[in-house]
This record gives sequence, C-alpha cells and structure tokens, in this order.
Amino acid sequence: MPPVSLSLDNLMADRVGASGLPTDFLAAEAASLRAAHAALHARVRSGELPFLTLHKETAALDRIRELVAAHRARFQDLVVLGIGGSSLGGRALLAALGGAGPRVHFPDNLDPDRFSALLASLDLERTVFNPISKSGGTLETLAQLLVVRDRLLPRFGPAGLAERLVVTTDPEKGFLRRLAKRDGLSALDVPPGVGGRFSVFTAVGLYPAGVGGVDLDAVLAGMAWAAELLESSDPAENPALAAAGALWALDSRHGRPVLATVAYADALRATAEWFAQLWAESLGKQGRGPTPVSAVGATDQHSQLQLWMEGPPNTVISFIEVDAFKTQLVIPPADLGDDPELAYMIGHDMGHILRTEKRGTEMALTAAGRPNLTWRLDRISGESLGALMLIWEAMTAYAGGLYGFDPFDQPGVEAGKIVAKRLLAGR
Amino acid sequence: MPPVSLSLDNLMADRVGASGLPTDFLAAEAASLRAAHAALHARVRSGELPFLTLHKETAALDRIRELVAAHRARFQDLVVLGIGGSSLGGRALLAALGGAGPRVHFPDNLDPDRFSALLASLDLERTVFNPISKSGGTLETLAQLLVVRDRLLPRFGPAGLAERLVVTTDPEKGFLRRLAKRDGLSALDVPPGVGGRFSVFTAVGLYPAGVGGVDLDAVLAGMAWAAELLESSDPAENPALAAAGALWALDSRHGRPVLATVAYADALRATAEWFAQLWAESLGKQGRGPTPVSAVGATDQHSQLQLWMEGPPNTVISFIEVDAFKTQLVIPPADLGDDPELAYMIGHDMGHILRTEKRGTEMALTAAGRPNLTWRLDRISGESLGALMLIWEAMTAYAGGLYGFDPFDQPGVEAGKIVAKRLLAGR
Repeated sequence: MPPVSLSLDNLMADRVGASGLPTDFLAAEAASLRAAHAALHARVRSGELPFLTLHKETAALDRIRELVAAHRARFQDLVVLGIGGSSLGGRALLAALGGAGPRVHFPDNLDPDRFSALLASLDLERTVFNPISKSGGTLETLAQLLVVRDRLLPRFGPAGLAERLVVTTDPEKGFLRRLAKRDGLSALDVPPGVGGRFSVFTAVGLYPAGVGGVDLDAVLAGMAWAAELLESSDPAENPALAAAGALWALDSRHGRPVLATVAYADALRATAEWFAQLWAESLGKQGRGPTPVSAVGATDQHSQLQLWMEGPPNTVISFIEVDAFKTQLVIPPADLGDDPELAYMIGHDMGHILRTEKRGTEMALTAAGRPNLTWRLDRISGESLGALMLIWEAMTAYAGGLYGFDPFDQPGVEAGKIVAKRLLAGR
Repeated sequence: MPPVSLSLDNLMADRVGASGLPTDFLAAEAASLRAAHAALHARVRSGELPFLTLHKETAALDRIRELVAAHRARFQDLVVLGIGGSSLGGRALLAALGGAGPRVHFPDNLDPDRFSALLASLDLERTVFNPISKSGGTLETLAQLLVVRDRLLPRFGPAGLAERLVVTTDPEKGFLRRLAKRDGLSALDVPPGVGGRFSVFTAVGLYPAGVGGVDLDAVLAGMAWAAELLESSDPAENPALAAAGALWALDSRHGRPVLATVAYADALRATAEWFAQLWAESLGKQGRGPTPVSAVGATDQHSQLQLWMEGPPNTVISFIEVDAFKTQLVIPPADLGDDPELAYMIGHDMGHILRTEKRGTEMALTAAGRPNLTWRLDRISGESLGALMLIWEAMTAYAGGLYGFDPFDQPGVEAGKIVAKRLLAGR
C-alpha cells in the first residue's frame, strides 16, 4: 500500500446526487488541469519556485543534520521563536512524529502569561532558542527574542548567548541575518523563493523536527516519493492535481467554499492546522477563495458533525484516515459484556473502531448528499507525512492557478501590521 | 470595568459600509428580539431549561465541592473519559483557569496511540477516572472505560476500582447509572433538561475544573452576574440577545454564515473551541445555520487573516480581548535598540503589544468593510469566564429562536453512529 492515496468517489454526482461533481469531471477538465500543471511546473523548473525540489538541496540538508545532531546531544529543550509559517510546519511534524530527546516548544503568540511561564520552566543552561522569520523582521519573533536575549546575555555572556541561539532566516537580508553576522550566531537559510507556508521542508520545519527526534530522512523520502507523482499532468496519476481541480470546482461552481479537514488521529490535528494556513493564506483573495476548518475525528463528530450533516450545503469534508496505528488496544470483555450498550465493541481493536466510526460518518454524509473525500495514510510515518504535506502544498499551488490567484503572496496581512506598528510607535 | 462587555459598533453600516447592519438594527428588530427572549425565558421559568439557573442548584454544587476537595487531596491525576460536550467545557475552564494540584487529562478520542501512551504515563494508584456521558451509552467513553476497568480491577479489586471511578451521567437512566448502582461508584448528575453542550456549569464541567484547581465559586459568581443581565429583553442591556440578533441577521440576510472567534490570549483557545461545538451543533439545521471557526490572535493573523481581509465576504470576526494579563513582561532595550526593526516595540509590555495587534487588525478589517465585534474581558478569571460562557449559551439559545430551530437537539449526528455500530456488530 502506498504511503498516501486519495479517493474522490464521494464527491461525484453518482454518489451524492446533484450537489456532486459530474462523474466525468476529471476527464472533462483535463485541459484546464493540464494548463495549471504546466504553468506551475515551468516555474519550478526555472528555479523560481524551489518548494517542490527541496529534497535535492544536499548542502542545506547536511547543514541541518549537523546542527540537529550537535544540539540533540547538547540541549534538553528547544524553543522556536516563530509564528504562522515559521511555526506550523515544524509543529505538525513533531506532533505526528516526535520521539525521544529534547522537548520542543512553540510559544508563537505574544502572550505574556504563557511566554513567561515557559521561560520559568526551562533550564536555560541546556536550552537552545531558534528565532525563525523569513523576512527577519517579524514583530512577535523579535519581541520574544529581545526578552530571551535579555535573560541569556547577563548570565552566559556574548559567547554563551551565541551558543544558545540558532537563527533561521533569509540568507542575505533582514534584521535576524544582520544580528547573526554581528554576533556570530549559528544561522540556517530560508531559501529566497520559498514562502513561509511552503517552508516545512527547509530548516524552518526540519531543524526543530530533527531536534525533537523526527527521522528527517524518512520525511524527505516521503517528499521525494510524492514529488515523482507530481510530475504527471494526468489527474489519475497526480492526486494533488485531481484534488485541486475538484475543490476549486466545488467552491467556484457548486457553492462550497468551506473545506473541513477531519483527521481521524490525534497526532494529525496539527497537520490539519498547518494546512489551514496554507489553504487560507494562499487562496483567500480578490473577494473569493475557500475557508478551511480543521477538525479531528471521532472527537468532532460530537461537535461539528450536526452542521456538516444538516447545515447549509456550503462544505466539503476532507477526511484523513490512518490504516494502521502503532498500538493495538483491544476492548476487553467484561462481566458487563452482555449489556447491549457494550456487546458490539468488545473484542475490537480501538484503531479499528476509530476507522469504523470514520466509515460510518462517511457513509452517512454521502447518503445525505454531502460531498466528501478521503486521504488515506498507510500509517503515521515520516514517509506518509512528508508525502501528504508535499501533495497538499502542490494542491494549493495548482488551485491558485485554477482560481487565477498568485498563491504565493499575502497582500491582505500588511494593513493591520502597519496600523499596529504605528500605534506602538505613538504615531 | 465589568467582567465582560460587548461592542457591536464594527458590525454597523456606518463603520463597514454596505456589508454591515443598518445602524438602527437593534431598535428596528426590538420586537423579534423581545419575542425570542420571551420564548426562551418562559421555558427557563417553567423549569424545562435549567441551564440558566444552575448556579442556584445548591445541593448539586455542594456535592461537587465535596468530591473535589476529597479528590484534590487524594489523587495526582484525573482522566476525564468523555467526548464533545462531555469534554469541551471542563477543558475550556482548565485551559484558562487551572492551577496547582492534580493534572487533568481529556483523551476524548478513541486514538489507541494517544490513549495507551496516557495510561502508561500514569500512577494508577493515584489516578481517578471520570467517565462522563449524559446518555450513559457513548461509544468512545464506554470503550475507554472498559480498557481502564480491565487495568484497575485486577490490581485494586472491586473496592479499589470503585474508589477510582466517578461517573457523571443522567440521574436515573443509562448504562453508566446502572454500573454506578451495581458497583457502588461515586456518581454525579447531568440534570435531565441540560444537554451536553450546555452542561459546563454542571458536574460535567465543574468537577474536572475543580479537581484541576479552578476556583468554582468565582466561576459561579461570573455565571450569576451574567444571569442577571440575561433577564432583560432590551438588547442594550442583554449582550447575548444583541449579539444573537446581529449574528442571525448577518447570516440570514447578509450572506455571512462563517463566524470566526479569535481569542487574543492563548488561555482562551479552548474556550473558542467549546463555543464552536455549541454554535455548530445548536444551529446547523434544516439546510441552514452558521459555520464556526475558532482561532487565536495574534497567531492566526499569520494564518487566516489574509482570508478574512480579502477572501469572500462570508465571514464575521468575533474578537475576544483581555484588558489585563497576569504577567507584565516589558520588551527590554538592547544594544540593538536603534534598529528601526526594533525601536517601536521596546519598552512596551507584551500584553499591550498583543492588544495593539488586535486593535490594528480590527481597524484594518473595519476599513476593508469586514464586519467584526469584540467581547472584552477585564482579565482572565473565573468571573469573566463564567460570565462569557453563560452569555454565549444564552446567545446560542436566542439565535435558535430567531432561526426557528430547536437549539437543544442534534438529529444529524445519529445516522453515522448507527452505521458504525452496525458495522462493528457485523450486521
């Protein structure tokens, strides 16, 4: 079984009736999908968009591996100072795949209660801080860095400070790069053509993940496996292209702007949150675009399912299903076992029950005419996560082409920042 | 300053232009709002809907306080076996207000990897388990309970098992109540007229919160303060009624079904998640109703803000702002301070910066014609949380009246459960 596979069957009119896509949708749209594929991959081949080929950046990856090995041996805590695309990717990898070794923290927000509680809980002697900002000037990251620097410098001096800071930023420009040069800090690169939300396979995601015990080679192997699939302009071979086409059509032609990603595994909650940024920030433009919602099954069957079943017909459900969990946990028989409230579950493995709950929800949604699709992982592994995350990055980029947007900019986030900085500066 | 206050100014056409509500909206809708208020409060006064008067249930509250005191002294971990409305309220109170004492865990999902890792991490001798299910028959809760029972019974015997289980369920009916009677377990009640998502002020929310160090009297004082406001049928006096009317009109008349709750405090993330269930499950009905999204600021300025600023005009932003954090954390000057990337933040308290980021985002959204409202808390306390949660419960119930739905049922969640149980039973 491949690490990731996709089923779009329950999006089609023969399953969900009039609210679905025409059953020959992918064939009928072959030309527009091919065009979206060609446009993106031409920019990839020209070197303009390196996000699909980061697994081939051997020198950068070796530099990350080297720091990871040194810091796993030296430190017991890593604190990532980063927000948005500088936090969500590493956090997703760690939530799904983190192992033994240093703890990794992502305070991200400028919340004084949480940030001071975190700092108070650390042994600063054995903690490394990793400010991450592509521009090098992110407000939240620099504010946190100033607080941290103010605690480290008096205690450890300039050399001790430099030992405990690893900067991840643009290779040439910005405040963090200037600081790294001035103070002799370790520094890792965000390649110039890779935006924050497409940066999980750079040092932005890989350094924290590696320090936290994620097998980076497995993640990169999954990425490489997916990159092969993405070469094809045939949606039957390229799941990112098929899903992009279907979701774009369901939003723009069938009135379904909400995409609810429902992961049936607690470890994938953060992956769904990472995807929400990718989808929202890339495609929410020009008064159009889809709204992502992230959820976990079966938990959110007890929270959002009523809405998905009987609410407005504006939502597509994107399930993530895991074929095999690490742990077998059979529901044991009990002296209570003849109770009809219990009999049906006894003897089943908990992971099987969870998958069956997904299957029941999927069947009920389909019967109710609610379009849904399924991403299936063989197991939660570096291979499957690396593959899924690259496929979703490509899906987002293809969708940008279909909507006619630039998926790599975010012009709408500047206005609020400018007002906030002006207010803080007293102007 | 009151514990909670509401501003709807940025929903109005004089602020956001044509996408807003008429500036005299609340006055113009006074009759329909009064009718929704009268209909709900008649059911409250008849005793049919006790969720607004739970702070007066002295005997039930005393019973909770007694168990809380005993178990805080006796145990070091509490594991809540509950999902959806049996988990989200207690979790929200603890995330915002939890203090020293026993750790409280909410595994909720049937995830075998996470559940077995949790059990392996506990000292079972000093752990109490709290299965919570209003019906007494929730699949996930009973499956977890069977696993736990199978570990406790051989080790501690029937008496030791009974010491380590507290059941929260219907006072008369269902499997959990039968089990409690049969095995002499401690048991707490979910009052029959209170649905899961309206149960945070019963033992469902209060027992776990109390064990985890939340000041229950403060929460109940906040609830009582809010219950007074709710007596008024004048939307100028009753913020729940004003907000219900505005959000209902923005969805049903102005095409804004998405309600994004953005809490500018990490501690309130779980409160926004609790609200998402309340809003979705109560109002997603008959092919209509709103879609909740929960987010945290400033974090999600780096994730969803692009969509809210420039995406489709289908969203209302509901901010939660905290006037004063517990911790003062001033951004220190540094020898780097003349850098223009830093100068504007130095000397400001981190909480002030966070509030200013909210203010910048609010001003930018308003200028872009994007309707938004603000719930303002004086600080994060039992009083403000208790008040906010009761106001939101009432807001949801009033909105149900305005939509013409029964906000207290959830008919859409049964179909998938039935399929899953049938598949598990091999039928």
